[in-house]
Amino acid sequence: MPRYKLTLEYDGRAFRGWQRQDNGPSVQAALERAASAIEQAPAEVVGAGRTDSGVHALGQVAHLDVGREWRLDSLRDALNHHLRPDPVVVLEASAVADSFHARFDARARHYRYRIVNRRAPVALDAGRAWLIRHPLDAELMHEAGLRLIGRHDFSSFRSSSCQAASPIKTLDHLSVTRHGEQIEVHVRARSFLHHQVRNIVGTLKLVGDGKWPVDRVETALAAHRRAAAGPTAPAHGLYLVRVDYDP
Amino acid sequence: MPRYKLTLEYDGRAFRGWQRQDNGPSVQAALERAASAIEQAPAEVVGAGRTDSGVHALGQVAHLDVGREWRLDSLRDALNHHLRPDPVVVLEASAVADSFHARFDARARHYRYRIVNRRAPVALDAGRAWLIRHPLDAELMHEAGLRLIGRHDFSSFRSSSCQAASPIKTLDHLSVTRHGEQIEVHVRARSFLHHQVRNIVGTLKLVGDGKWPVDRVETALAAHRRAAAGPTAPAHGLYLVRVDYDP
Repeated sequence: MPRYKLTLEYDGRAFRGWQRQDNGPSVQAALERAASAIEQAPAEVVGAGRTDSGVHALGQVAHLDVGREWRLDSLRDALNHHLRPDPVVVLEASAVADSFHARFDARARHYRYRIVNRRAPVALDAGRAWLIRHPLDAELMHEAGLRLIGRHDFSSFRSSSCQAASPIKTLDHLSVTRHGEQIEVHVRARSFLHHQVRNIVGTLKLVGDGKWPVDRVETALAAHRRAAAGPTAPAHGLYLVRVDYDP
Repeated sequence: MPRYKLTLEYDGRAFRGWQRQDNGPSVQAALERAASAIEQAPAEVVGAGRTDSGVHALGQVAHLDVGREWRLDSLRDALNHHLRPDPVVVLEASAVADSFHARFDARARHYRYRIVNRRAPVALDAGRAWLIRHPLDAELMHEAGLRLIGRHDFSSFRSSSCQAASPIKTLDHLSVTRHGEQIEVHVRARSFLHHQVRNIVGTLKLVGDGKWPVDRVETALAAHRRAAAGPTAPAHGLYLVRVDYDP
């Protein structure tokens, strides 16, 4: 069966997360429904990252096996036709080897976390950014974030429901930048623990608040206990931006 | 009565436009309701620009008279409290002279028009940008737009329902820029005719399509007939970004 790689954008507010489940709409189920409709046979879609409920994607990647060869543009357009009106779209379809696996072959995952830092509520960014109403020091957050880069036991930033075999991950990039009232946290790693990005952001926010000194982030990391780090930042500020594979 | 200047953000999808009306929610009515609630008396709000149904604002300006002096932060927060859950927020409140008029004193209005230029539908930008699915040449659109800068009779770009006394306006700035699949049209003038920005964008799109040569925009302008120019671009790509006043 031919295998295709799909690049996806979605608005996380409309879904109970990536993963197919019984108690609400999921991105995976929406895609499988669309794929089944064009193939007139059951279809399975495997995603690179199982984003949580409310988390958005600008460039999630999934693979899909179909019964016949498709022209790439036709496959993308046919899937998008059947995805309506769900807010998930196939940006690109490309042909890949039968051995390609969206999840296991991913070399890097890029996430962005958006914070709007102002007193007034958000109108246009409702559901798309975390509103923090008191001033944050983004430079201190950046400095604290640098302490997390590298290969570490990230147990302090791991959800209790995480199913990963090991808490050891390598964080390759973390930066915090401010443009006016917009603060963005960018992170990159080969893979992340469940809630790792949101737990990092929730912890860096304590530094930005002035509640924590920068050094305490290192102490929290070294504690290997979830309770040592800060709270989980809300899902709706998080975007899966891109997934990289070997060429 | 003390007068305050309000800077506003709103999601145009939720409103039938700025202006108070009988057949649906308006930004002006939402603000007047909030102002009446905090003042416990009827209140009137005057806006700098009467944005159409679906048009967004990042920095609309309005003035409001209230019965007593307010601390600026308290006024902003109290209005925002009463505006919930409507997607309109007061970003800033400032004290102005009794003679200040949001509409008549405006020195410049800045608008941005967002186009997403790609084959795939939009998920995250639904209702916030005009999706154009065939490739546009943004450089040609920019070149054509430059022909409209200056003081002209803009009758060809004026809605039949426009109430302005004269069709003569001075367009101070127009630029078209592309970043990947995002195209933005920026315009600035002291004031605009009804639908002028959307009619300009709809016309420049014909140039971007390759349907019109650049020169035809000048011909359309010189014709002083609405039928000589292109169609009206959709409201949901348009943002009122900022309104300038004398210091």
